Amino acid sequence: MLRYLTSGESHGTSLVGILEGMVSALKMDMKFINNELARRQKGYGRGARMKIEKDTAEILTGVKGGKTIGSPITILVKNKDASINELPVVRCPRPGHADLAGALKYGTYDMREILERSSARETVVRVAIGSACKLFLKEFGIDIISHTRRIGKAYAETEGLSFSAIKQLSLKSSLSCADKNAEEQMIKEIDKARDDKDSLGGMFEVIAVNAPAGLGSHVEYDRKLDARLAMSLMSIQAIKGFEVGLGFGYRNKRGSEVHDEIYYSKEKFFYRKTNNAGGIEGGITNGEPIVLRCVMKPISTLMKPLKSVDVKTKKEALATVERADICAVPSAGVVAESAVAFELARAMLEKFGGDSLAETKCSYGCYVNKLKKY
Amino acid sequence: MLRYLTSGESHGTSLVGILEGMVSALKMDMKFINNELARRQKGYGRGARMKIEKDTAEILTGVKGGKTIGSPITILVKNKDASINELPVVRCPRPGHADLAGALKYGTYDMREILERSSARETVVRVAIGSACKLFLKEFGIDIISHTRRIGKAYAETEGLSFSAIKQLSLKSSLSCADKNAEEQMIKEIDKARDDKDSLGGMFEVIAVNAPAGLGSHVEYDRKLDARLAMSLMSIQAIKGFEVGLGFGYRNKRGSEVHDEIYYSKEKFFYRKTNNAGGIEGGITNGEPIVLRCVMKPISTLMKPLKSVDVKTKKEALATVERADICAVPSAGVVAESAVAFELARAMLEKFGGDSLAETKCSYGCYVNKLKKY
Amino acid sequence: MLRYLTSGESHGTSLVGILEGMVSALKMDMKFINNELARRQKGYGRGARMKIEKDTAEILTGVKGGKTIGSPITILVKNKDASINELPVVRCPRPGHADLAGALKYGTYDMREILERSSARETVVRVAIGSACKLFLKEFGIDIISHTRRIGKAYAETEGLSFSAIKQLSLKSSLSCADKNAEEQMIKEIDKARDDKDSLGGMFEVIAVNAPAGLGSHVEYDRKLDARLAMSLMSIQAIKGFEVGLGFGYRNKRGSEVHDEIYYSKEKFFYRKTNNAGGIEGGITNGEPIVLRCVMKPISTLMKPLKSVDVKTKKEALATVERADICAVPSAGVVAESAVAFELARAMLEKFGGDSLAETKCSYGCYVNKLKKY
Amino acid sequence: MLRYLTSGESHGTSLVGILEGMVSALKMDMKFINNELARRQKGYGRGARMKIEKDTAEILTGVKGGKTIGSPITILVKNKDASINELPVVRCPRPGHADLAGALKYGTYDMREILERSSARETVVRVAIGSACKLFLKEFGIDIISHTRRIGKAYAETEGLSFSAIKQLSLKSSLSCADKNAEEQMIKEIDKARDDKDSLGGMFEVIAVNAPAGLGSHVEYDRKLDARLAMSLMSIQAIKGFEVGLGFGYRNKRGSEVHDEIYYSKEKFFYRKTNNAGGIEGGITNGEPIVLRCVMKPISTLMKPLKSVDVKTKKEALATVERADICAVPSAGVVAESAVAFELARAMLEKFGGDSLAETKCSYGCYVNKLKKY
Repeated sequence: MLRYLTSGESHGTSLVGILEGMVSALKMDMKFINNELARRQKGYGRGARMKIEKDTAEILTGVKGGKTIGSPITILVKNKDASINELPVVRCPRPGHADLAGALKYGTYDMREILERSSARETVVRVAIGSACKLFLKEFGIDIISHTRRIGKAYAETEGLSFSAIKQLSLKSSLSCADKNAEEQMIKEIDKARDDKDSLGGMFEVIAVNAPAGLGSHVEYDRKLDARLAMSLMSIQAIKGFEVGLGFGYRNKRGSEVHDEIYYSKEKFFYRKTNNAGGIEGGITNGEPIVLRCVMKPISTLMKPLKSVDVKTKKEALATVERADICAVPSAGVVAESAVAFELARAMLEKFGGDSLAETKCSYGCYVNKLKKY
Repeated sequence: MLRYLTSGESHGTSLVGILEGMVSALKMDMKFINNELARRQKGYGRGARMKIEKDTAEILTGVKGGKTIGSPITILVKNKDASINELPVVRCPRPGHADLAGALKYGTYDMREILERSSARETVVRVAIGSACKLFLKEFGIDIISHTRRIGKAYAETEGLSFSAIKQLSLKSSLSCADKNAEEQMIKEIDKARDDKDSLGGMFEVIAVNAPAGLGSHVEYDRKLDARLAMSLMSIQAIKGFEVGLGFGYRNKRGSEVHDEIYYSKEKFFYRKTNNAGGIEGGITNGEPIVLRCVMKPISTLMKPLKSVDVKTKKEALATVERADICAVPSAGVVAESAVAFELARAMLEKFGGDSLAETKCSYGCYVNKLKKY
Repeated sequence: MLRYLTSGESHGTSLVGILEGMVSALKMDMKFINNELARRQKGYGRGARMKIEKDTAEILTGVKGGKTIGSPITILVKNKDASINELPVVRCPRPGHADLAGALKYGTYDMREILERSSARETVVRVAIGSACKLFLKEFGIDIISHTRRIGKAYAETEGLSFSAIKQLSLKSSLSCADKNAEEQMIKEIDKARDDKDSLGGMFEVIAVNAPAGLGSHVEYDRKLDARLAMSLMSIQAIKGFEVGLGFGYRNKRGSEVHDEIYYSKEKFFYRKTNNAGGIEGGITNGEPIVLRCVMKPISTLMKPLKSVDVKTKKEALATVERADICAVPSAGVVAESAVAFELARAMLEKFGGDSLAETKCSYGCYVNKLKKY
Repeated sequence: MLRYLTSGESHGTSLVGILEGMVSALKMDMKFINNELARRQKGYGRGARMKIEKDTAEILTGVKGGKTIGSPITILVKNKDASINELPVVRCPRPGHADLAGALKYGTYDMREILERSSARETVVRVAIGSACKLFLKEFGIDIISHTRRIGKAYAETEGLSFSAIKQLSLKSSLSCADKNAEEQMIKEIDKARDDKDSLGGMFEVIAVNAPAGLGSHVEYDRKLDARLAMSLMSIQAIKGFEVGLGFGYRNKRGSEVHDEIYYSKEKFFYRKTNNAGGIEGGITNGEPIVLRCVMKPISTLMKPLKSVDVKTKKEALATVERADICAVPSAGVVAESAVAFELARAMLEKFGGDSLAETKCSYGCYVNKLKKY
């Protein structure tokens, strides 16, 4: 069973993750992983911190001669700014952050003890872990991309674009946006928000292609793939909503309009002409692209701070200002790709087992052959 | 650690659940539990099955003299229609259901082997289990209600209504709808859909009040309460989207507009004048009402069946027609209440521990007292 | 991931178990399962309860047409003696039982609330679940037997006996003992203990053959197969010790005397001439028979009761006397077989995955073929 | 829920562990932790590696100003000898080690890929993690010590010694042996084994005092404290047997001889005059000292290597010789203390909950007060 833990504070010496359960003999392409970390850092609207840090993953364990050996993989990313012990005490919780709820829970008057961990900087490790999972998925032809659908009022239209078109456009865009016009508007929105010392929310989409039909299961609530994906994506900092396929668009529709009718041909096997289900029916992949969408709330740290309370004196005060982004939707999309990669790799290993890449591939082949003869 | 498993097929002899980890000395109010089961069955637009079944929970284990004794609680609900072995083989998968994906995964040509388990009839047990959790939560003043926000084009406006107003209105409404006008429109939509042999999706909201600040945690991805709630709710049959508080409404907003500023008074402790966060910040409850919303896709079984394929012959065919509802949004809302109840009870027991109700209450008191002195 | 929960009180209406994660298309041979339940009930030295009950498993869910369908399997065994509500309050805890520790933990003065669940009658369900796992293992040629090595002073010598010889002898013996002479002595010991209103401990061995090399893993503490087996076996009522292979016999040995040297031949692949490791090295099966031994303490309920205290009055008193066995070592052995079957089935499914029996077999074939070419 | 993962290879750059779920505001006494690491390294009979390494734990995350803050704690121990990439390929598996079984499982011909992780060097991290747990337990007066009971033929008699006497003697002894005479014999045994290029097994005991009655539970198999302790201890490298209290000594006893009769006095609460149960009845602590014993097989690497096979050529060969100890029983005892500390801390947090030390203490106080009034 694939699993992981992450650790690390935003201004601690380092961020760490252990990924346990990965097969042996998988090539750990560090260039790929570090490129993914760079993708996470980019995005118009990111703050000063991203100019300081240039995240590089170090693999401490689990890899020998550039390949996994079956043992737990430790990924360490060092912080350039490791000033945690010099940074000031935080007494005025920022609305929207874990600051106050966390301080009450853990019994502290210094919200730095909370915010250092609740910070989205934690996602560096999740991207590194997810990138390792992507390398595994690649071996089975599974590919994942995110792209920005919305920032502020600007909305990206991508109807009719293929996965590879979206991928190319997203990778080239400073905002991971596959719609050039929308991108320009988004940049303007961000500039305006910066001028106003404000922050912006948005929405991104993650698409995964080539996952075989049959991942996840309908038999128990915690085995449904969409439920697991929901958990993984909702656990990303600032994500407040999640939908699969048509998602909230289903709310005012009739069954006859939206369910994806089933077709069959020798070449395409069972297939659909629409994909409102977003590739998952009954908690199980159906072979169509997996399409997920998340909403991100505006960054909770504002340069023009909101009203708050000093937790010691209980007097009205302005919220603490920490260095922050104006908008991090494209970055959250990259994190989400990694979360999806982890869940798909986990589902693949549950279905196909295997302790070495060759073994998993052989089992996968068994299943694919059975499908062909179905 | 509170946990459960459910089992049972839609037309098997019975549906079963085991809830493990509940405290001892909790009164098992069977009238309450059975009333919750009845709530799940009601709703304008439900199908013929609901007229056949009158679900009653039997507690087989874990309760003595009307109280829990700390051992696992088994809940059994018998099916009146237990015809699984007489029902016909299903060869034409219904778009939207687990039928086809499940058949490929489990290697069967009879989709009855899949649909009997993927059926939302499974949620009977989840409601029974969740109702037991509600009894536990009641001891701490925590209350939960769902209400229908949308069916088809009809939209319920509940702005400004208090929790208790919404609860009363929802309980009285045939569609769990707190807006009388909307309810009427919804009924019309359902009638029209029935006439057209079609089905309808919608949206419901779940609100939980009086959960203390500090449930869930920001420290690890799988401990965030919103992530866990997402998993629990997204695992309910036909749910395709989930949001917390303002949810997707955040996508085009600025931080200054939406983050809930923090206030303090002796009487109210820390509090907010808005609740866009939906009661959860950084994966942790902040003491405000927890507000969640889910979208439900239209029922996937249509009386005017969609296009499908016979999995044996691979020829075009119409999807199998099983007995089904036209719209089950209010029912899904009741199931969702139970899913929320389970997650809150689990989070309470994680934070406060305790093997008997008295012990958990004492620990809870410790924490509440600390908060008062904070 | 294979998992299960059990529930039920000794004198409740029934005992229940849910087994989740078993493949589809596995024939559920009820005759086999019920025969295993009968094996659990037998054994010279069992008490009156075993004459009352004739345990029969009913499968409520997860099976259709005699085969599994991938959904959770519910097993229910009804108690003939379901007198829990009429049975007297228990105030005088029995030394050796959970009575006192459980009453303090769960905050009750009636130890019936504890002993009804801590009773070894719970193992009925574990045997039923384990028997389903045995049916799965059989498909891969894996077989398991237990036999009694010690009751009181009587010791069974089985040096040099093959697995099948031990199996045959154990199945024929009234005490699951493969040594005829020892069996006679054991019967005498039991008779003497009965006369003295006393009880007896002992030791049994479980052997599993044909598990492939490579189950379990050395990479993380909770993935070691011997550790998991230890947990499963130590969780059986009254078991106080566990060993693998030579076990405690290693304590005064040198490495040169005990480590199993490695040989190779085309026919036998890698093999050993000794099996002190008991089939597990570094937490991984090595292809040799898995050999485990457990010690069982004497039954804690004595007809000549031990000293205790009335928990209400705090006055000295004799321990409560409940109906009980004099010796249940053979029965514990059967339970242990089931615990081993569960753990091996779980390890098989982790390594080979698969949602249908055919799929798991194909993946298993992949691995076995790889081993052949190694 | 307290949990951890460890990672790292014996000759990799470092060994890492993440401990998740520890309360905030616990003082991390690094001197104590490093002293525990030193205890793990000592012991007459250890090999050359222990002279090279002087293990020091670095805490990378989860601690600020010397105290925990509730977030995951990362412990890193650097290897001085980090030569993994220069070390030779291993083709001749050592009997007793994971070498061969692991190579077959993970599909490699270089057993270095296995032995680097299966090495007992992994336990450095477990000791560091367990030491953090000990610091937590200390706050509740819970103390743990191990001592060597057997090496080769030499047997330590400790009958009648108090916990604190055993602790003092063990800490002063070069072999953690509380019996001076036995220690001398043990040293001789080790010297002889060294001369013969052989290795030695043995047995140690772990005692934990002041755990409150009520940890663990009888209600489900995987909640029994003895079962969990068994898993934790059996997962330590080279451990082949585990027993609680009288353990295998129960096998030839009668109930009347061995069950610990129950007494009560105002001062002592419920108590026993004997402790054959080893502090656990029905999977629950009963308030008496927890007494566990483990057998360790002789070190599997012999300087006079055993027969093996070259896995490439399949020709007979001598097993590879790696640097190794002659006997590591005292060291395994220290590791076992840490494994016990983790399980007790986990059980404490399950029962008492709490996110800060003060909160857990208050809940603990609730329970202790209830016991006093029971």
